[in-house]
Amino acid sequence: MKVAIAGSGALGSRFGVMLHDAGNEVTLIDKWPEHIELIRKNGLLVDNGEEKRYVNIPVFYPSEVKETMDLVFVFTKSMGLQEMIEDIKPVIGEHTKIICLLNGVGHETILQEHISLHNIFMGVTLYTASLKGPGHAYFNGTGKVEIQNFVVGEKEELEAKQIVELLNEAGLNTSYSTNVTTSIWRKACTNGAMNAICALLDSNLHQYCSTDQAEPITRQIVKEFVIVANKKGASLNEEEIVDYVLQASKNIGSHYPSMHQDLVQNHRYTEVDFLNGAVARMSKEFEHEAPYNELITQLIHAKEQILEVK
Amino acid sequence: MKVAIAGSGALGSRFGVMLHDAGNEVTLIDKWPEHIELIRKNGLLVDNGEEKRYVNIPVFYPSEVKETMDLVFVFTKSMGLQEMIEDIKPVIGEHTKIICLLNGVGHETILQEHISLHNIFMGVTLYTASLKGPGHAYFNGTGKVEIQNFVVGEKEELEAKQIVELLNEAGLNTSYSTNVTTSIWRKACTNGAMNAICALLDSNLHQYCSTDQAEPITRQIVKEFVIVANKKGASLNEEEIVDYVLQASKNIGSHYPSMHQDLVQNHRYTEVDFLNGAVARMSKEFEHEAPYNELITQLIHAKEQILEVK
Repeated sequence: MKVAIAGSGALGSRFGVMLHDAGNEVTLIDKWPEHIELIRKNGLLVDNGEEKRYVNIPVFYPSEVKETMDLVFVFTKSMGLQEMIEDIKPVIGEHTKIICLLNGVGHETILQEHISLHNIFMGVTLYTASLKGPGHAYFNGTGKVEIQNFVVGEKEELEAKQIVELLNEAGLNTSYSTNVTTSIWRKACTNGAMNAICALLDSNLHQYCSTDQAEPITRQIVKEFVIVANKKGASLNEEEIVDYVLQASKNIGSHYPSMHQDLVQNHRYTEVDFLNGAVARMSKEFEHEAPYNELITQLIHAKEQILEVK
Repeated sequence: MKVAIAGSGALGSRFGVMLHDAGNEVTLIDKWPEHIELIRKNGLLVDNGEEKRYVNIPVFYPSEVKETMDLVFVFTKSMGLQEMIEDIKPVIGEHTKIICLLNGVGHETILQEHISLHNIFMGVTLYTASLKGPGHAYFNGTGKVEIQNFVVGEKEELEAKQIVELLNEAGLNTSYSTNVTTSIWRKACTNGAMNAICALLDSNLHQYCSTDQAEPITRQIVKEFVIVANKKGASLNEEEIVDYVLQASKNIGSHYPSMHQDLVQNHRYTEVDFLNGAVARMSKEFEHEAPYNELITQLIHAKEQILEVK
């Protein structure tokens, strides 16, 4: 299979290497010059904490790839998805399938502007990875992936199951989901309940969840998420998710959520528009209000501007 | 007149000194040992930027004062009002008038638990002052004061006007207000629109108001304030206040609001429960929701706990 990884940061590298190792013809696509140069020079350095190895995979800037692919996995930041899809148009042929496992909600709105709905496959993953520097991917432990066809149909379901098989052959623990929308919203809701707040409060999850405000804030954020999620075809239960979030936060301990890393630690744009911002925006479609998610989104954007993020 | 200043920090010192200079028998009351000791030893050091002088005024811990006063000005932090009033009960006789010029709303709820409504006088002041250290008050420039009787009545109005006269004799630019509730809410609304947000974003007013989020956030906060304010007898216009706040913030420039000073700079409890928190609380009395003010209050309390403020 000809597979492109559109956005070859941490998680893109992990999927790219595993699909490459399984015998697929993998092309990495990225925009970070130092990252690209080091991979071209030495191969991608893959580090699992115990051993390191260099993996030779072709890597290109988006504009350099002209060959039509069978599969494209998008692993950009959410904010970079639109531009990436526009940049790699030559890669996307009539039969090219796009697989989107990005965190958050609303990516389908971007994808369907450019790609036939039949070729869109949405999913969610619990795999993690990090970059230790340009050209240097770090990952270990396991995870899982759920995937489903975006459009209901026998052909599309069959194709989704073929993608599931391909990922399983590569050692990526993947299942076909009969309701991936619920899985996506559930994960987004968990992230939406904690990430932005920790970024605003400059706290880790443990610090925040030790305050007596964590429960009422979480409850209200989740309530607003669940209303929109269920209108969008997910099936979420407010009480169950609130309990899950509050319990999870106790276990995660001293972890700083990714939005804290982006905003506070690295002064980068956050993905808030695909979490709390998406809920605020989508609520309006149903003539609902989502004031908690709206204010959280506004405060994050204000902070981005105050910090002059890039 | 026998006048007690209950809470002799920056602004209490300013009022105390001016009333003392005008010939009143002023007693300062405070709880800060270093402050009290230095005033007892040297007098209160009064500094207007051009000259310094020591003013000898008696100063006591709350429990030390037994004499009934004619007037008590409360100049505590809002959170300290309840305890102060309880501590100075011996000072408050049948005819003792209490004058409350504190920022924010809801102080009357505390006062009326302990003091006859006829003896409560509410007001608002634009005077400012600061403490350069214990025993060292700094103030210059001018300001103004508005005062009104809490209970409608000829006798009460007459007494309010006598207090106005007393303050004017002391050089404090004071007028009798026919709608002090509007003035109090107006000031609280201005503070509520900006203070807590700047504390949360760790920004000054200029930085915050330069973001494109300041207007929509301000509009929503003010909208919720105005609904409650008008139910409580004030007469505020939403558009006019929003314009005022946004305009004021442009002029104030690089000022860090007091809540930023308390929370971020000094890790002290904030007065949020007498600003945004009061609106969230009072909205419920009218079966209204004030989600922006509610979330802001929750975030400030979470941050207080994370910073382990005192």
